[in-house]
Amino acid sequence: MGIERVTIVGLGLIGSSIARAVKARLPGVTAVGYDASEAVRDTARELGLCDTIAGDAAAAVADADLVIFAVPVGGMADAARAAAPGLKAGVIVSDVGSSKAGVGAALRAALPGHLVIPAHPVAGTENSGPAAGFASLFDGRWCIVTPGADAPGDAVAALIAFWQALGAKVETMDAAHHDMVLAVTSHLPHLIAYTIVGTASELEEVTESEVIKYSAGGFRDFTRIAASDPVMWRDVFLANKDAVLATLQRFNEDLTVLQQAIRRGDADKLEDWFTRTRAIRRSIIEQGQDDAAPDFGRKH
Amino acid sequence: MGIERVTIVGLGLIGSSIARAVKARLPGVTAVGYDASEAVRDTARELGLCDTIAGDAAAAVADADLVIFAVPVGGMADAARAAAPGLKAGVIVSDVGSSKAGVGAALRAALPGHLVIPAHPVAGTENSGPAAGFASLFDGRWCIVTPGADAPGDAVAALIAFWQALGAKVETMDAAHHDMVLAVTSHLPHLIAYTIVGTASELEEVTESEVIKYSAGGFRDFTRIAASDPVMWRDVFLANKDAVLATLQRFNEDLTVLQQAIRRGDADKLEDWFTRTRAIRRSIIEQGQDDAAPDFGRKH
Repeated sequence: MGIERVTIVGLGLIGSSIARAVKARLPGVTAVGYDASEAVRDTARELGLCDTIAGDAAAAVADADLVIFAVPVGGMADAARAAAPGLKAGVIVSDVGSSKAGVGAALRAALPGHLVIPAHPVAGTENSGPAAGFASLFDGRWCIVTPGADAPGDAVAALIAFWQALGAKVETMDAAHHDMVLAVTSHLPHLIAYTIVGTASELEEVTESEVIKYSAGGFRDFTRIAASDPVMWRDVFLANKDAVLATLQRFNEDLTVLQQAIRRGDADKLEDWFTRTRAIRRSIIEQGQDDAAPDFGRKH
Repeated sequence: MGIERVTIVGLGLIGSSIARAVKARLPGVTAVGYDASEAVRDTARELGLCDTIAGDAAAAVADADLVIFAVPVGGMADAARAAAPGLKAGVIVSDVGSSKAGVGAALRAALPGHLVIPAHPVAGTENSGPAAGFASLFDGRWCIVTPGADAPGDAVAALIAFWQALGAKVETMDAAHHDMVLAVTSHLPHLIAYTIVGTASELEEVTESEVIKYSAGGFRDFTRIAASDPVMWRDVFLANKDAVLATLQRFNEDLTVLQQAIRRGDADKLEDWFTRTRAIRRSIIEQGQDDAAPDFGRKH
């Protein structure tokens, strides 16, 4: 099935990047955009993100072959209900949320009778809003598609082809497994980063000004993802609670082991652990999931 | 007092960067290098890092006005004892270790009668070894100098001027305070990163291959500092044990608070926390301690 018209609901970092990528890579496809915020719609018009920026959700999705909800995962159901009256029969409904089981259930409940194929492009930056997006955001990144067992093969293939055209590599998996994988590779890292940045800013012994000044010793790395959108991440932790808490428990166990090794002066255990973790970095670079340049390629 | 001849003992990332920076920025200063590893000495000679690479430690430091020990903090005492017979009267002995109270004590015990002024350039990358260094590593980064109360002012001023000539900004502080500041801004971040990379690589539910594949969701950021030199970091945690364990306790408290907020579904607490941490990132960028470019300026 051909996708000739795509509507993007939510024009933040991801939504605006999809819009830019469609314009850059799929010139035959009409891109329609909508955002619940009038200010965001105005900015999107000024930036020329889409062929049309619609004034309401139902009008935005009219005649669309593919509708992608790109809003915080806690807002998916409301966004879908607002768009529902405009959806045509046979439309593919998808999203870009960081948790998939809950979002799939919410979209299906809000849109009975419509086909929902959840998806998650594993890409982003710490910036938010319609001006933060860029067309190459998905190049070489993975997009995980989590179709239900009853999803028609041609619709799944069309969604996969869409994401590949935007530059992504696509994998399909079960929604529950996605949520466990992302709890480890994305949600737990964000939780840890948010925690340590908060901890460092509230110590009595060390001023916030000192933390900022000497952040190049490692701390600054954590501040990047701790600058991510607060509402988006609030929703992710609430939506993927069980998997996040399960991986957090494993992290806490490991941290206790290393804490004890430091307290006891167990040099061998520390050196063994730190040697093992080096290999993971090498594999990530070899597989093109990070720059090989030292220090992420920061300018020196 | 003028520094006309500097000897660098230990030619890894930091030592080789000092050597390169001296050659680039201080053409009137003679740089002598030494490393306990013959292979590293050979590489240093091939790279032309110094004016001379000496074959033993005592010969390397002969006639030096400034000797900088750039070895893992657990190896400072041995390195100093090996060099001791060659030190001239009036030499300034310094180092680059990430912990200062213990290193200062170790160097003073190993070198009775010599002036020791510990220092710590807060700069680096995840790479190690003599080929990993570069002359601009210290540009705009802070170097913390921790002179004892009895250090002569002209010697302290000479060491400060040396680091400034290499591009660093210099701050002086008490060694114990340094160790607390760095526990927060560098040691705890490294410990957390090492922990989470280890945790992620040993889960039953998610394969290591999946962790690598989908690492762009946040995890990859942690793998950079978890790829740092294992021996160097083993030594740092053992040398700065008390401050590291104290800040780790604070981190654990905060993590428990956020864990409980997730479990209870306390959306407001999560959003409040995540909003506060954004401001720290902005300050770090404003003060030139990180790139403003999204995603650390990674190529997209």
